[in-house]
Amino acid sequence: MSTTTAASSSSAPDLTTFALAAGFQSAATACGLKPSGNLDLGFVWSDGPCAAAGVFTTNRVQAAPVHVCIDTLAAAAGHVRGVLYNSGCANAVTGERGVADARRMRELGAAAIGAKPEELLVLSTGVIGRFLDMEKLARGVTTLRSHAALRSAGDAARAIMTTDTRAKLAFAPLVLPGGRATIAGFAKGAGMIHPNMATMLSVITTDARLDPTRLDRCLRAAVERSFNRISVDGDMSTNDTVLVLASGASGAVVDDAGEPAFTAALTDVCGSLARQVARDGEGATRLVELRITGGESEEQAHRVGDAIACSPLVKTAIHGNDPNWGRILAAAGYSGEAIEPDRVRLWFGEGDDLQLLDRGLPIAFDAARASALLKQDPAIVHLDLGLGGESAIVWTCDLSAEYVRINADYTT
Amino acid sequence: MSTTTAASSSSAPDLTTFALAAGFQSAATACGLKPSGNLDLGFVWSDGPCAAAGVFTTNRVQAAPVHVCIDTLAAAAGHVRGVLYNSGCANAVTGERGVADARRMRELGAAAIGAKPEELLVLSTGVIGRFLDMEKLARGVTTLRSHAALRSAGDAARAIMTTDTRAKLAFAPLVLPGGRATIAGFAKGAGMIHPNMATMLSVITTDARLDPTRLDRCLRAAVERSFNRISVDGDMSTNDTVLVLASGASGAVVDDAGEPAFTAALTDVCGSLARQVARDGEGATRLVELRITGGESEEQAHRVGDAIACSPLVKTAIHGNDPNWGRILAAAGYSGEAIEPDRVRLWFGEGDDLQLLDRGLPIAFDAARASALLKQDPAIVHLDLGLGGESAIVWTCDLSAEYVRINADYTT
Repeated sequence: MSTTTAASSSSAPDLTTFALAAGFQSAATACGLKPSGNLDLGFVWSDGPCAAAGVFTTNRVQAAPVHVCIDTLAAAAGHVRGVLYNSGCANAVTGERGVADARRMRELGAAAIGAKPEELLVLSTGVIGRFLDMEKLARGVTTLRSHAALRSAGDAARAIMTTDTRAKLAFAPLVLPGGRATIAGFAKGAGMIHPNMATMLSVITTDARLDPTRLDRCLRAAVERSFNRISVDGDMSTNDTVLVLASGASGAVVDDAGEPAFTAALTDVCGSLARQVARDGEGATRLVELRITGGESEEQAHRVGDAIACSPLVKTAIHGNDPNWGRILAAAGYSGEAIEPDRVRLWFGEGDDLQLLDRGLPIAFDAARASALLKQDPAIVHLDLGLGGESAIVWTCDLSAEYVRINADYTT
Repeated sequence: MSTTTAASSSSAPDLTTFALAAGFQSAATACGLKPSGNLDLGFVWSDGPCAAAGVFTTNRVQAAPVHVCIDTLAAAAGHVRGVLYNSGCANAVTGERGVADARRMRELGAAAIGAKPEELLVLSTGVIGRFLDMEKLARGVTTLRSHAALRSAGDAARAIMTTDTRAKLAFAPLVLPGGRATIAGFAKGAGMIHPNMATMLSVITTDARLDPTRLDRCLRAAVERSFNRISVDGDMSTNDTVLVLASGASGAVVDDAGEPAFTAALTDVCGSLARQVARDGEGATRLVELRITGGESEEQAHRVGDAIACSPLVKTAIHGNDPNWGRILAAAGYSGEAIEPDRVRLWFGEGDDLQLLDRGLPIAFDAARASALLKQDPAIVHLDLGLGGESAIVWTCDLSAEYVRINADYTT
């Protein structure tokens, strides 16, 4: 397989042990943007200048903070100081006023740590089409500077959550020619998750030292095989952003020789976060790993996996442990890729435990065993296209009635 | 609007009053393909040769009967005699044996009415990846020829149903230069429904007289603005087929002068059937009509509507009467079309009763009134792109927890 599977070398730390990379601090508070009173404002910053890179939603409707982040990276990718973010309001489809609010949010964050506004990144997530309550936000930033703020990195990760049922955390150690370094980050996302872009909000820190051009290249490669390979509901957000900041605090430099190792570790962290997002898909009860092999190209394998990952019929069948594999074939068939039905083979299970289809022909199988394999977490489906030697893994989750309940009254 | 809305000139007759066009007979029976014992075998035929046309799924995985129908139309589009169809088994992903079974089914049907095998069309619908029980089917065809068969057109329409909760029937009268004619047909479909092709099974009869080339042209035009404009779950079937047979029994000829009227009436019938399919989407509680105006082209408007129609977040919000319109904008934004967020306007209600967005800016609105408008059947959403003068209507349904329950254990 050309990408790591769910069992990768990165670890998913818990909220109490999670730490950002060296050189970064964090703070979190509840400023009232969420009616629930849960944490809704977070800040990750460095005392010194960081290299920074970002990948953003390709939705034509881009939220105001996305525009402001793009401005920041254009102006100061080599000396970014931090990321101020809120949940409870997406500041999307808010026009000029939304952009002005996002700029003001950037100023408030910059003032809090003695940085210039153009050295700050901002993220927002929550309901679309509502204006940010700037009074609450300003009071919240004041709290972030005070002793009342929560300082643990776990709290900073919690402050970005919306319908997430748990925080998504990942960490990877890294040995570079110049010494040891770490990559540590968090993400949010449970609904409105679709591949083919950075697919949710994520803030990743590293204490490695590298220039913003290299960091951008590494991030794009990592995102392509992680956040771009998951789908919860096929809905693409207006706010999707993945940011990475490199403090250089470890002293370990990423040069040409070290870049592959850095990219691999960053891919591990992004992959772990992406799988955590898919696993925590709204209403989901398990992660689904779709291994597509035998493609003419990795892109072809990815697109076939994407079609299967987006199929409500496949996802409801897996939810019900129903080995209705015809739906998997039907989805592959409408993926837009020229698959050859007479060549495909299909298995369930981590070790291809049960074969259901051989060169387009059904194989009689034990339904109870097939159900049991679908019930595993992750549920693993392997489809071989029989066309070539390329492959891709795509992750999704099952689709439950709970997804509908969560989304039928999100704003009311 | 360039297409008819839900209130069109065609009528949706009930099961007791429904009749096929002159020149057609029908029969239906339960031959045991459905464990429930419900009707699962139907036959529509003519005593004389008919012009026939068909539109088929573009899924790369095409069911065996699709291949056989294509053969029949290639050999005998000017003298087709009828359509034999079953529910309870899709005869899809069944390889060579499936094609042999579909050919045998065609022979059985042809023998029953004294036709040649290549003059018969066959359809199958139900679970994918299982072989047809040819013994049951052969016995069923024998029953169709006997007095034990049900002869009403309503029963013929019921025999094609799977998870449908009601039969889909439509009828349109037509005045041609040569006299009066009728178009009458039925359809099945509730899940695995996605636009961009003939989207379910439908059999349409007419007593107008026209050649197969003209009939094919009229059918393609009608399908483009009806069956291709609906989505239940974004899943594209392996078996989708729309067939139309013209007996000529009315004596009314469709020539160049009459073709627009015939196409309009056929579009009405197809549109009525398509809306009935969307309305009966698995677990659906209401039809949703998406009116997209202000497009640079009809195709652009169609693609934007399609993205919204496929969004689980939009469909769950409508199910919950939640005026979370940001999801509509987000879906339009990822449609692949170059919409301009600052130009879009949005309304709910049949008469644009409530405006929610004006040139990209939210308008304060009465949430209770917005909820009430979404609760209507059909729920009507009007999005103006502000880019041009073209428009399209797309139909879908709301997404309920019942959809998940229906699909979580379809085969088990």
